[in-house]
Amino acid sequence: MRIKNLAVIKLVIIAIFFVVVSCEKKPEDVLESKSASEHPSLILSKQGVKDIRANLGNIPIFDKTLAVTQSEVDAEIKKGFDVPVPKDYSGGYTHQVHKKNFLMLQKAGVLFQILQDEKYAIYVRDMLMEYAKLYPTLPLHPQTRSYARGKLFWQCLNDSNWLVYTSQAYDCIYNYLKPEERATLENDLFRPFANFISEGNPQFFNRVHNHSTWGNVAVGMIALVMDDDDLLEKALNGLKTDNLQEGLKDNDGGFIKKKGQKVGFLANVDEPFSPDGYYTEGPYYQRYAMYPFLIFAQALNNVKPELKIFEHKNGVLLKAVNTLLNLSDANGDFFPINDGQKGMSYYSRELVTAVDIAYYFGGQNPELLSIAKKQNKVVLDDTGLAIAKGIRDGRAVPFVKKSIEFGDGPNGEQGGIGILRSNDLELVYKYTSQGLSHGHYDKLSFSLYNNGEEVIQDYGLARFVNIEQKGGGNYLKENKTWAKETIAHNTIVQNETSHFNHKYEIASKNYSVKYLFDSSNSELQIASAKELNAYHGTELHRTMVMINDKEFENPFVLDIMKVNSDKKNQYDLPYYYMGQIMKVNFKYKVPSTLKPLGKENGYQHLWKEGYGKSAFENAKLSWLNNGNFYTLTTTVEEKDDLIFARIGANDPDFNLRRDPSFIIRRNNTQNTVFASVIETHGSYSPVSEFAVNATSAISKVKIIYNNDSYTAVSIENINGKTKIFIISNNDASKESKHNLNINNMEYQWVGPYNYTNIN
Amino acid sequence: MRIKNLAVIKLVIIAIFFVVVSCEKKPEDVLESKSASEHPSLILSKQGVKDIRANLGNIPIFDKTLAVTQSEVDAEIKKGFDVPVPKDYSGGYTHQVHKKNFLMLQKAGVLFQILQDEKYAIYVRDMLMEYAKLYPTLPLHPQTRSYARGKLFWQCLNDSNWLVYTSQAYDCIYNYLKPEERATLENDLFRPFANFISEGNPQFFNRVHNHSTWGNVAVGMIALVMDDDDLLEKALNGLKTDNLQEGLKDNDGGFIKKKGQKVGFLANVDEPFSPDGYYTEGPYYQRYAMYPFLIFAQALNNVKPELKIFEHKNGVLLKAVNTLLNLSDANGDFFPINDGQKGMSYYSRELVTAVDIAYYFGGQNPELLSIAKKQNKVVLDDTGLAIAKGIRDGRAVPFVKKSIEFGDGPNGEQGGIGILRSNDLELVYKYTSQGLSHGHYDKLSFSLYNNGEEVIQDYGLARFVNIEQKGGGNYLKENKTWAKETIAHNTIVQNETSHFNHKYEIASKNYSVKYLFDSSNSELQIASAKELNAYHGTELHRTMVMINDKEFENPFVLDIMKVNSDKKNQYDLPYYYMGQIMKVNFKYKVPSTLKPLGKENGYQHLWKEGYGKSAFENAKLSWLNNGNFYTLTTTVEEKDDLIFARIGANDPDFNLRRDPSFIIRRNNTQNTVFASVIETHGSYSPVSEFAVNATSAISKVKIIYNNDSYTAVSIENINGKTKIFIISNNDASKESKHNLNINNMEYQWVGPYNYTNIN
Repeated sequence: MRIKNLAVIKLVIIAIFFVVVSCEKKPEDVLESKSASEHPSLILSKQGVKDIRANLGNIPIFDKTLAVTQSEVDAEIKKGFDVPVPKDYSGGYTHQVHKKNFLMLQKAGVLFQILQDEKYAIYVRDMLMEYAKLYPTLPLHPQTRSYARGKLFWQCLNDSNWLVYTSQAYDCIYNYLKPEERATLENDLFRPFANFISEGNPQFFNRVHNHSTWGNVAVGMIALVMDDDDLLEKALNGLKTDNLQEGLKDNDGGFIKKKGQKVGFLANVDEPFSPDGYYTEGPYYQRYAMYPFLIFAQALNNVKPELKIFEHKNGVLLKAVNTLLNLSDANGDFFPINDGQKGMSYYSRELVTAVDIAYYFGGQNPELLSIAKKQNKVVLDDTGLAIAKGIRDGRAVPFVKKSIEFGDGPNGEQGGIGILRSNDLELVYKYTSQGLSHGHYDKLSFSLYNNGEEVIQDYGLARFVNIEQKGGGNYLKENKTWAKETIAHNTIVQNETSHFNHKYEIASKNYSVKYLFDSSNSELQIASAKELNAYHGTELHRTMVMINDKEFENPFVLDIMKVNSDKKNQYDLPYYYMGQIMKVNFKYKVPSTLKPLGKENGYQHLWKEGYGKSAFENAKLSWLNNGNFYTLTTTVEEKDDLIFARIGANDPDFNLRRDPSFIIRRNNTQNTVFASVIETHGSYSPVSEFAVNATSAISKVKIIYNNDSYTAVSIENINGKTKIFIISNNDASKESKHNLNINNMEYQWVGPYNYTNIN
Repeated sequence: MRIKNLAVIKLVIIAIFFVVVSCEKKPEDVLESKSASEHPSLILSKQGVKDIRANLGNIPIFDKTLAVTQSEVDAEIKKGFDVPVPKDYSGGYTHQVHKKNFLMLQKAGVLFQILQDEKYAIYVRDMLMEYAKLYPTLPLHPQTRSYARGKLFWQCLNDSNWLVYTSQAYDCIYNYLKPEERATLENDLFRPFANFISEGNPQFFNRVHNHSTWGNVAVGMIALVMDDDDLLEKALNGLKTDNLQEGLKDNDGGFIKKKGQKVGFLANVDEPFSPDGYYTEGPYYQRYAMYPFLIFAQALNNVKPELKIFEHKNGVLLKAVNTLLNLSDANGDFFPINDGQKGMSYYSRELVTAVDIAYYFGGQNPELLSIAKKQNKVVLDDTGLAIAKGIRDGRAVPFVKKSIEFGDGPNGEQGGIGILRSNDLELVYKYTSQGLSHGHYDKLSFSLYNNGEEVIQDYGLARFVNIEQKGGGNYLKENKTWAKETIAHNTIVQNETSHFNHKYEIASKNYSVKYLFDSSNSELQIASAKELNAYHGTELHRTMVMINDKEFENPFVLDIMKVNSDKKNQYDLPYYYMGQIMKVNFKYKVPSTLKPLGKENGYQHLWKEGYGKSAFENAKLSWLNNGNFYTLTTTVEEKDDLIFARIGANDPDFNLRRDPSFIIRRNNTQNTVFASVIETHGSYSPVSEFAVNATSAISKVKIIYNNDSYTAVSIENINGKTKIFIISNNDASKESKHNLNINNMEYQWVGPYNYTNIN
């Protein structure tokens, strides 16, 4: 290489001088150099960094998280980074590398601030500069499956993930960078990036959907760092015009544009969250969405405190954290309603962020400290510092999950979900709206847990998220043909067809109706709801009661499903019990060859393992699971078919679990009631080999009264004591007085139900 | 009632005086009154009691156990006791009460000694007196199922349990009792009781069987308390004459009398225990038998130290404890070979006793302290005191389970069991003898564990021990029709018939032959054995290798099953993998209706869920279980049928678990080799949703050489590196030199096998 003239030599000398000078700067000096707008300010703050540094070594859980993060990032710095030309879907190399990169950028940025070691800033700067070189050269991502293809990734969703994290990294090294470096990054990378996922993809950006939330937040985060109010406005309230047609759908079958739909971040808070903080897609997706919602709220609160984002919609964002924690079982696993993968829990990284933010901005609730303590890590910022100090100072108190109801829908008036809890027993009763494209067709379904063990399961989804061998880690076809179908759930199926005939367009316009929820009496808690639209001409009314009666060893569940129709139908009521059958009280046959239970609507996936009829008024099924005994006692009629089924038919790729079900099939019936009691009783230890209290304590369950106004069920125990439960079917008022004669006995009570001794 | 004369009045007054005096004695005085032979001496000793009392309050784990025991016994004393006329089988009231009584008697006796509170002695005395009143009136137990009916219980076995525990109670209050009370108890209860279960039931007492062990020990324990050497002689060496016919069987199908059979306690130590301390029935029954063996050994050692019982057969009794601990997985659960119920573990009460005794009498091995620490309770005697002190003083070190082989048979020459361990992987390879009446027909079978999770399972038994609803808690008929059959295990089935044609008489005369066991090289551990008699005219030779090769993420298993026969057969080799299928590499069909795989020999219990053939040399099956991925890569021939099966056909009572199996079926073949590699790789977390290393690292497994002398298998990994493993089939000498040409490559090595790079 030949040097052409003196001017160039001068330039080189000046450049070398600057590099030398910047290398010689001590870390402290780096942070002293102030710019016009303060940085960091997005998530970390200058004051926050000072506080953190002052406490280091004295905040165990924070120190531990920091050490783990440092060793992880140091290892990556040592390895060096790659910024490859995008090529692959989720499982592939370029996808994984770009994903790792944004996670590392964010962490390195934080480490630069906290440890004030320049190597982290250099790592962030150098990698961002590579991205700034690559990005302008990129066409659309070569993989075509998405309705909104990205550039770094196959979908704009992942591009948005990238920007949410990278904005934080940029903020952390903002002041470290020279103005011309900032100019390069903003002009070649961040602005075109933000424009692409917004103006360039209105079908992605201008929606109410978790995808759009990520898009809005990505644009909003970089807007705050760059102090760009126009961009921020787009993030908060969406694009003014988008030229999208109403009724357009994405590749998951969800609607893109609905009439009169507001868009942008604020609309994404307003609509899918109910006032109770329930996110309409269910807890699995609420968990996924919580990160962008809360991280952006934290940034807005830091940079634009005048927006009072944490007070928006009565503080729904912080309330939602509490809601989500209450939607988990005793192990912290989220209830897998709708498309939820089992095992996802409050130990996820999203919930670490959520809990830390909720603690810091939500009044430092000491119950959250006990969750953070179990999580055993914190966010490396002001919120994590506060949590770490709280735990260190022994301020944690147990997070007590109580019985609670959450309304669904923007105004909380589109049904809801009721959780009844008593001792170790947790009942999840679902009477929500459809839950967007991730909803299942399971109106009035329920699931039951005993100390975190599934007693009556909700199947969850048919997908192995991110496991490439199983359909690329995406939704499997059995998610539609099995997991979403009604028969896959613990609720009524009429004539072997799913609710709303499995039509999303219809289902998404309807929701169940809350009838009654009362957990104020710990001896009898009740949740009751109606569904009027799942089957045209049929009304379903299910009442679930958790009774804590000293006559019984444990609380038990009374389940009353009342069906009224304008014609005769076949009704199937399945119970997806988990465990090994111990005993049944009726005669049945097991076939010598197994055939599917039906041809379609999910029935094609069930093997018919056995079938029988009961000569008694009750069918009883007892089973054992993980050291506990359970018994279902259900009222049956002579013509009922009692079916033992097992999942797994027509499953050529072994995508489904071989779990069992017990189905009560009532044929050729117009109006009817199914009444069942589910007990948990006794225990078995394979170590002591003692079986304690292994049999049911209930001798009879009987429907002793049923008309439009009232339904009454009697429950007799093996000691001959009988209780009756009466519900008023059309008057849930707490004040109403009732008077009813059943079998020559007079019952008088006030309020929607009555539970009393009969002898 | 009229008083007849003065003499009677005098007697009454004297009696009252004695009662008052004895009531007024202070507890200390009670123990000071010495009798000729010292008591307690059986399990507790006078010195031991002093030591325990001196340490109370300062030995946490002992103090805790004591407190629990005290509160339990106090509650029983408060309730009062019942000594009902015997009537029921195991599930019923009288059985349960008599069982509780002997447990309480033993505990109360110990509490009397340690706490020196007279109420415990009174409780024991009064209850024993009730038994002394009842016993002489008792006919045989009314239930007739047993080959040796008891009096208190339906079988002599349970009567013996009663006496083993009660003898200890009697010893503890011996000195507290008046001579006439002792006379009553001995004459009316203990002597006739001991005579009944010995002379009265030679078919029970004069055997080598765990039943007889209990009988021998019961008689021996009471003999030691009563200082009766004649009785002790019967216990140790059996009855001199028994008039039993050879070939007689019990109701479980086990032999009662074999030709030249020695009997009594010492014979029961000599025969079922191998010199390595392996008990031929397997660990589940070894655990059951350990209590009488060890408690009597402790008593003998205390009272008759000159017998040096702990040195008998080179100290096999103490060695057996170590053996049993090594026969457990990472969670402490015993490997469920033969009739073993899953979940039984070293947390059982029998193992608490065993570990405490082994520690105290076996050289205070500090590794046992770590087991006792996990058990979190101790025996309330000298042995428990020693353990508690060791733990308190921080002397516990981890119990490290290593790879180990245990010979089976009285001389250790009837096959054996090999355990190979590397990191989290544990392989259990069974080439034992039949294992008496609790043995399964599964020569050369194996099971595999990863950190305590089953990877390739052994089914265990078909029984729900003590769960009354399931066949009275006894063996279910499926134990014979399924669990014992060969196809229920991971080994070769020829022509769909079980080993030895499921004939106990033949099976019990045969055993597999150890060929090679070497765990000295942690990079390659090997266990190899042959079975020559399971099928007439067919020789099986299976070699299992655990290879820890840095080219692979984790250690993996190489499984070579070589079959030579004098005719063509069908061979089935099942793998009972646990988990959900991720991927297979061959084409298969799933049937639209499920049929059983066969008609008999266990096949009638398998549903045929899928079947295919491989166009490649290897069939691959990958599955996921509890967050780990596994892959089986197995050599197949074009004609092989690859079968997906599931347990559960012809199971009218839902007694069987619906677990899956993958079966390689080789048709119409005379001599052949099955070579397979089982990998554990990667991980999946439903919380992070990261799937790491989810696919197999092996691209090809190939049998590259096979004749009578050598079998060689090559293993190629996905990076193109190939290793070969050669085993010499008929020369296991470590010194032999071998020289072999395979595909124009020369291999030279010393010893029975060679593992080397091929490129």
